[in-house]
Amino acid sequence: MGKWIESENNLYCSFEFNDFIEAWGFMSKVAILAEKANHHPEWKNVYNRVEIWLSTHDEGNVVTDKDRELAKKISELVD
Amino acid sequence: MGKWIESENNLYCSFEFNDFIEAWGFMSKVAILAEKANHHPEWKNVYNRVEIWLSTHDEGNVVTDKDRELAKKISELVD
Amino acid sequence: MGKWIESENNLYCSFEFNDFIEAWGFMSKVAILAEKANHHPEWKNVYNRVEIWLSTHDEGNVVTDKDRELAKKISELVD
Amino acid sequence: MGKWIESENNLYCSFEFNDFIEAWGFMSKVAILAEKANHHPEWKNVYNRVEIWLSTHDEGNVVTDKDRELAKKISELVD
Repeated sequence: MGKWIESENNLYCSFEFNDFIEAWGFMSKVAILAEKANHHPEWKNVYNRVEIWLSTHDEGNVVTDKDRELAKKISELVD
Repeated sequence: MGKWIESENNLYCSFEFNDFIEAWGFMSKVAILAEKANHHPEWKNVYNRVEIWLSTHDEGNVVTDKDRELAKKISELVD
Repeated sequence: MGKWIESENNLYCSFEFNDFIEAWGFMSKVAILAEKANHHPEWKNVYNRVEIWLSTHDEGNVVTDKDRELAKKISELVD
Repeated sequence: MGKWIESENNLYCSFEFNDFIEAWGFMSKVAILAEKANHHPEWKNVYNRVEIWLSTHDEGNVVTDKDRELAKKISELVD
């Protein structure tokens, strides 16, 4: 868990938890990190699974250090 | 806001808020409703936008009253 | 962490986390458990600390099995 | 709702909502504001009621502009 895949246009990672409540606890922490960094993910949830795509829109939807830093902080939440 | 579109396989609705914090406040309420109903959405968020797809997996990914009831409760949150 | 103290009128526990974000992730899970059980805590947060008091109001503010069950579920979140 | 009382040591406000879910939606927004401002409240919740005390610990638990600014932002969430 927490392995990010970098493509041309985004950093992607899929996270899996025991159930929805655990997934939601994780999302609640990510939400704060995102707003604090003023850098918001595209993310999706179904039950125990959370998928996150990070991309820097201002730079034309490419991956920048802003994405890599947020990705690192998100991964630290689940380590 | 809060107008659901029913297709063969799901109930879909897109919600738009002023900013991420407002979107997140809404999602935090939906999360509780979902777990309480033991019926979890497929949902996606980017900044101020929240998209929700409801479907009953146990019945073969069709729309049932379980979806319509949750949709109604979600819409009441933003009315 | 997660050791509850039972007095005449409530079950009490204090939880400490690394920072506010970790405390908030925990609270976000407790909120769902509480609403799902239709049994709401009296709780307080300052930065990385969360204090919870459980009591059954309908029974005259005494500790009942409803409190003990919710306490158990809350403790499982941090184990 | 949203009327703050300033004493020597803190800014205090009590908020009341329809139910726990509404109170929780509010708290979820306050949590983000607080972490973003790196200024965390002492706050308490029971069911539909949220009480918030703001104080600047670094300055010796007095009320400063940091508290007044966060109070203003919190009040705007419920206006």
